[in-house]
Amino acid sequence: MPNAFIQQSIEMAVENVHRGGGPFAALVVKDGIVIATGCNQVTRTNDPTAHAELVAIREACRVLGDFQLKGCDLYCSCEPCPMCLGAIFWARPERVFFAATRADAGAAGFEDTLIYEQIAVPHSERSIPMIHVVDPQSGRPFGEWVSQPHKAEY
Amino acid sequence: MPNAFIQQSIEMAVENVHRGGGPFAALVVKDGIVIATGCNQVTRTNDPTAHAELVAIREACRVLGDFQLKGCDLYCSCEPCPMCLGAIFWARPERVFFAATRADAGAAGFEDTLIYEQIAVPHSERSIPMIHVVDPQSGRPFGEWVSQPHKAEY
Repeated sequence: MPNAFIQQSIEMAVENVHRGGGPFAALVVKDGIVIATGCNQVTRTNDPTAHAELVAIREACRVLGDFQLKGCDLYCSCEPCPMCLGAIFWARPERVFFAATRADAGAAGFEDTLIYEQIAVPHSERSIPMIHVVDPQSGRPFGEWVSQPHKAEY
Repeated sequence: MPNAFIQQSIEMAVENVHRGGGPFAALVVKDGIVIATGCNQVTRTNDPTAHAELVAIREACRVLGDFQLKGCDLYCSCEPCPMCLGAIFWARPERVFFAATRADAGAAGFEDTLIYEQIAVPHSERSIPMIHVVDPQSGRPFGEWVSQPHKAEY
């Protein structure tokens, strides 16, 4: 069954390409109303984190004055990449709907699948090596956090 | 061997907790010089994507006027979560160094490990369900992208 919000995300993604941006868009919907939209702005804003989903999530949080998307759904023109997937789990919307897949993105030259694969690779063997520096002080930030009496948890 | 940038990230993370933020910090270093720093600002800015690494990456890109961190290293007080890991792969620094682990973060109440585990779960069975909406138009944004002659790739 066609979904109007998904169709809107696809149209927005097409328009974003015509404006010189990447082929991705996303919408945040609450109670049937679009409260925020986002298009890929990586090259326009020199921000590698400005994927459609992150732009839409940040805008929705600004609108709601909250760092959580309780009661919201996210509609994406394409399956979220690992960065956007992580952002979704931190923002905690109710559901995510997407149209194209990571394989579709890969066929158009985007590395989503490669990044998903890298997550399963041991740290030091990744294409960007991740090196664990053992430091006797590494637990201090968490110790301070746990002992804070009135902390804002998230 | 102790690493001065890692030690600095740990100190910044401790200070961020004292200021009411989360227990995480990160630095971007180029040619031995810190060009950007970031602390967790999720609750302060109502932005679930404002993890230390994302804040530092965005700031470094602003400083460099580029959406890539070529020739840069990232130093993190803790192992990056999946969102930050994805951002790192899109920003493409040379290396990432981290002190505490995702298990340390989990022991302090953070869901990094749960999110890593969710990536391996089928879309519809995730704790936030992700629903593939089959739409005959889903390939249009990529079609437009591929056919653009002068596009800014990223």
